[in-house]
Formats: sequence, structure tokens, C-alpha cells
Amino acid sequence: MTSAPELVAIVPAGGAGTRLWPLSRRSRPKFLLDLLGTGRTLLQDTADRLAPLTGPDGLLVVTGTAHAAAVADQLPQLAGDGAANLLTEPSPRDSMAAIGLAAAVVEHRHGPTVVGSFAADHVVPEPGGFHDAVRTAVEAARAGYVTTIGIAATGPSTAFGYVRRGAPLEGVPGAYAVASFVEKPDEDTARGYLATGEYSWNAGMFVARTDVLLGHLTRHQPTLEAGLREIAAAWDTPAREEVLARVWPGLTKIAIDHAIAEPVAAEGGVAVVPGAFSWDDVGDWDALGGLLPADEAGAHTLAAATSAGDNGAARPTTAGPLLAIDSPDAVIASDGGAVAVLGLPGVVVVRTGDAVLVVHRDHAQRVKAVVDALAAGGRPDLL
Amino acid sequence: MTSAPELVAIVPAGGAGTRLWPLSRRSRPKFLLDLLGTGRTLLQDTADRLAPLTGPDGLLVVTGTAHAAAVADQLPQLAGDGAANLLTEPSPRDSMAAIGLAAAVVEHRHGPTVVGSFAADHVVPEPGGFHDAVRTAVEAARAGYVTTIGIAATGPSTAFGYVRRGAPLEGVPGAYAVASFVEKPDEDTARGYLATGEYSWNAGMFVARTDVLLGHLTRHQPTLEAGLREIAAAWDTPAREEVLARVWPGLTKIAIDHAIAEPVAAEGGVAVVPGAFSWDDVGDWDALGGLLPADEAGAHTLAAATSAGDNGAARPTTAGPLLAIDSPDAVIASDGGAVAVLGLPGVVVVRTGDAVLVVHRDHAQRVKAVVDALAAGGRPDLL
Repeated sequence: MTSAPELVAIVPAGGAGTRLWPLSRRSRPKFLLDLLGTGRTLLQDTADRLAPLTGPDGLLVVTGTAHAAAVADQLPQLAGDGAANLLTEPSPRDSMAAIGLAAAVVEHRHGPTVVGSFAADHVVPEPGGFHDAVRTAVEAARAGYVTTIGIAATGPSTAFGYVRRGAPLEGVPGAYAVASFVEKPDEDTARGYLATGEYSWNAGMFVARTDVLLGHLTRHQPTLEAGLREIAAAWDTPAREEVLARVWPGLTKIAIDHAIAEPVAAEGGVAVVPGAFSWDDVGDWDALGGLLPADEAGAHTLAAATSAGDNGAARPTTAGPLLAIDSPDAVIASDGGAVAVLGLPGVVVVRTGDAVLVVHRDHAQRVKAVVDALAAGGRPDLL
Repeated sequence: MTSAPELVAIVPAGGAGTRLWPLSRRSRPKFLLDLLGTGRTLLQDTADRLAPLTGPDGLLVVTGTAHAAAVADQLPQLAGDGAANLLTEPSPRDSMAAIGLAAAVVEHRHGPTVVGSFAADHVVPEPGGFHDAVRTAVEAARAGYVTTIGIAATGPSTAFGYVRRGAPLEGVPGAYAVASFVEKPDEDTARGYLATGEYSWNAGMFVARTDVLLGHLTRHQPTLEAGLREIAAAWDTPAREEVLARVWPGLTKIAIDHAIAEPVAAEGGVAVVPGAFSWDDVGDWDALGGLLPADEAGAHTLAAATSAGDNGAARPTTAGPLLAIDSPDAVIASDGGAVAVLGLPGVVVVRTGDAVLVVHRDHAQRVKAVVDALAAGGRPDLL
């Protein structure tokens, strides 16, 4: 057993990313893409953001077999002693199995440790406030709470669940008991939430001691906990594949929100640290447009790289001119050729080697309908 | 001197086609494209349409050096005795030089002959009415008139010049004296024209005996006529290149409308045959949308071929699905990849190997602004 970092960050890297089609695809989901044109993918940016909190050895990524090689390419630091910090799931069993496996592996390696789960494909433009919030959450976690980071809502979004805070936590300034988690509301309900000043968005960031997390799991999902412990014990041994093949497919498929956050909140065991940083889950092309700077024509353009180069960084490309004429607030992304938009404010145009998407930003949430139509039309190559 | 067909059709094949960018380019202007998805390019369709009027040997195409090979590929019938019916201009000297050269070559080969000039890139969906009009025009031409075919206006277009008819021509039912030609009007003026019932669009179709045409030229543009005669006399001899190189660059650059049609109309020497056929010059993407049938989603799609195959016909392609969701009247063209449009009625999306254009049909006339911007931005490869 080796000494643990102060915080081990667990990053589940999955998702189909259909709302950012055609740039994101089954074979290259959102987290593998350099969506901001910075030269770093969202996954790399997530690792960069967590590094000051975890140190060089405190990042652990859980991904599927389809993306393990790409993740290893983009984050060579995970390799350590033979890919020690890249856990590959044989098949998706939802977030509790993914995060629980990582927590169990960490505890088996290091003993009780504070871990935090963070999505691989979110954007935090100014990480300072994020770091402050996580450090506060780590304190609350040490005190025995499963602690979530609440995202300051910028509007009555219906795309997120909400977390309602209760009384301040004694001894941990900036942290509060969680009164309840609530599912994605309708817009009127969301407005009501915001009016109270007690609600934040739930971005699925949970910080907890592994012994606390797995302890809750023992009570609420005992067979899942037992299975994860068995796999974790075998993980760093030659028995890993045999145990995984036997145990993993039978694990209960459940989200961490339902397995832990909601029942433990009802017991008074969950805390929230309301964050004071801007955050975006880049949920669709409209959201991405809001994150890309406006060019002189008022358009938001991305000369996109869709594959990683030798060093894991996004490959530089020479996308043709991305030209907006009389089209303020247009969002234009291309991984190669030129794009010209004329007289269409707020339009989204995305060009890849094999596809073009055109939609208004107001309809960006509906892009999944295109992916569904392509699937129904027998074009799996385009998904 | 060999016997002439009843009618020799002269087809000037030129134009940059900037309004159909990015499918039409300097290197592949509109007439070389299969814009209707029929397997025949507009040039081939023009030749097919004229063949019943001219017979197999009565088509003569005048084009620039840049497109001579493509024209020869698409119309192998021009080759005859060594490309006899494909005239290549060393440089553009406007329509009078192009048509006048062809007329002079025809007269030198066959003696006085009725010739007609027809654009290479117009569409006549039902050629029967067109054939009737041209046959009437040939009669009027035999009677000594320079005869134009008037296009039945479908609205007060500001994109065309108009021709106003006067009294019926004696002895040629269906033909009228031309009272005047007028330049492209503003919309109110155009409405006034249509209200009189005397105006047709001027599509630049002129039918005349070569001796009549060149006779008018002798009076109105004597040095141009002399130059054309000198070149024509040398055309089928080894001296062609020497004479062309010496004479062609000095020819007066003038449109046939100004050189012949307008002054001769003022003299009473021009006739018009008002056509009763539908016609389109495919002036922009909106016009093309009107010519393409609607699919089940109400969109007008074109799986375009941008290059000619071995037999001169358009090369078959496998353009990905062209998918319109909640976008009736959209116009979608692609020469390869998939295109998906969502929630944008009347949008135009054109995808080629190196570029994408997105514009609303209402702004289709402004596409030249994109081409201008690319030229100003130093991207001649995209023009």
C-alpha cells in the first residue's frame, strides 16, 4: 500500500455526444475533441484543471474499451506503472459502477482516501474558483460527508437537476447540508427554485472519502458494493480479467445520484459547496457558440481538429476560411474545408469530412433528431 | 463548300457562374455541371435540345481555352473532322466576337446559312414549345430578319432585359417586329412592362442568316466584321493560329445586343417570336431549387456530380443522405458527404469537397459577395 494524494480525481469518460454531431461521434465523443480550439481536448483540459488539486499521480480515468487507446494517447501521464490510472470497463454499467470501481481500487491501493468524481467533458473557463470550491469540498468530505459542488445557475435551465442547500455545515465554512436533490424541472419550477436562492445546478461532482462512499453503498446497494470490492481486489493482479469477466456483467446498473446522493441526502449525509465559478457542460452547439470568442463579423468559429496527434494534443489543421457575412452570432465549425454563411444570424454550420449540419442555435437541442434519423436510415457510419 | 443544315446552332459556352458557388467554379462553370441530377450537364442538355432542329452536324460551340477539353469531353459529336465544330477563343472578346466568328466560319464553309445563338447553361424543361418558336424564328430569319425568341415573363424580374414587340410580321405567323429592346428595369418599371402585354424577357437567343448578320455588322462594326472574316477564312487552314494571334486581340469587345440587336431594331430589322415554353437561366440557388423536384420532406435536393466521366456524362456519385427535418423548401446540394438541415425552411446548403455555402433562398442573389470576399481574402483556389 502506497501513500495517497490528498485528493484522487475520478474522471468517467463516456457518452455519445449526439448533440454535438457531426463533430462528436460514437467513435470520437465530446471529451476527445478540442472544442475550444485551444490545442487541448476537453479531457486534457479536465486533467489540466485537476492537476493542481491532485498532483501528478492523483488522476484516474474510467472509460470504455472503445476509447481506452484514445484516452491513453491524450493523457500519457495515466500510464504510470503500466496504465495504472486508466481503468477500462468491459461494458457500460452506469455511473455508480464506474465511480465505485475507481473508489474501490483507490481504497485497495492506498487505504481510505478522499476521491472526487468530475466529468471529462465540462468547461471551466477560470479554474481558480473551481479549485477553491473543491478544496472546501475536500474538507467536508474529510468530515464524513458525501459532498457535491453546486453550480451557480445562470438561468432557469431545464437541462440540469438541482440541489437545494440547507443549514451551513459546522466547522466547514462555505459548505452546507443538502436538503434535497431534485430532477430536471420544467421552466416555471426552475424559476421558482432560483427565486429562493437555495438551489444550484447539480453537475454530478461528488467528493467523498472512499470508506464513506463504499460504506453508504454497503447499506444501499450491498451486492454492487461486494462486486466492486471483489474486482478491486483483483485489479492489480493477474486475476483481473477473470474476475471482471465473471462479476462485471452482473453489477447493478444505477446512477450515483440514485444509488448514493439522493438516499444519503435524505439521511443528512450529503453536503454541498455552492461554487462561484463559471461552468458549462457544452450541451449543444448553442452552448459551444457561447464559449467561442466572436470574430470581427460577430460569428463564433472553430477550426476543429477531430483526431489527436502523436503527443496526444489535437492535430493542427488548416480549415479553409470560416466566413460569416451579415450573420452575427453564427456558429461555424469545420475540420477542413471552407464555410461561408450569408444573411443568416444565429445559424450553426458544422462541416466534417463526411457530413454537414445546419441548424439555428434556437434548435440546437434537437440535433439528436438528426442522429436518430441517420440511425433509422441505416447509416451507422455517420453516427 | 459543303451543304449546310437548315439551322446551325451557335452555343457560346462561358461565364464564371459565381452565383452557383461553390458548385460552379472558374474551373467548372455552370454549363459543365449536371445541375438537375439527370446525368446530363446543362451543356449536354442544350445540345440534346438543339439536335432535333439542327441535325447531327449543326451544332457549333465557342468556348475559351480553359474549357475546351471539358467541352470536347462532354460533346464528342463536335469532333467531326478534327474538332471542326468546337471553336476555341484565345481570350474573351464578348458575345459579338464569339457569335460573329462562328457565323463567319459557317458562312465560309457553307455559304449563307441560318444560324441561331443559344446559351449553354439555360434550362427548358419541355422542349416542344421551344422547338416551335425556333422554327418560326428560322422562317423570319429566312425572310431577312434578325429574330429573337422572347421568353414569356413569369413575373416582373429585374434580372433580365426586355424586348417589346410591335406589329405582326407579314407572312410569318407568330413573329412580330421588335419595337425596342430595353435594359434590366427596376421592379416598378417591369410591372408596367408586363401590364402592357407587349414585353418578353430577352434571353439572348438570336436567329439570323449569316449574310444578314454579317451585313449588319459591316455597317455598324466594320472593323470587327473585317477581322472576323479574315479569321474565318483562315480557320480551316494551317494559317489559323497565326491569324488568330494577330487579329483576335484587337477585335472590338462588344455584346451582340449593343452591336446588332439594338441598332438594327431601331432600323426595323429585328423580329421577335414570343415563346410559349417555360425557361430558366438558373441564375442562382433559389432558381435551381425551383427546378428540382421536392422530396417527401418538401426539400429540393441534388446529389451533384462535379466532373465528367469517361463518356462525357456526369460521373455517378454516392452523396450521403441529404436530410431536411422541419425545413420545407430547403435547397440541398452535395457532391459527396451527408447534409442535415434542421428547422430552417428555405435555407440553401451546398457542400463540395472544399467548401460549404449556407444562405437563405431570399438572399441567393448575394452569393457573389462570398466569392468576392474569398477573392479579397487571397483564396483563388476556392473561386
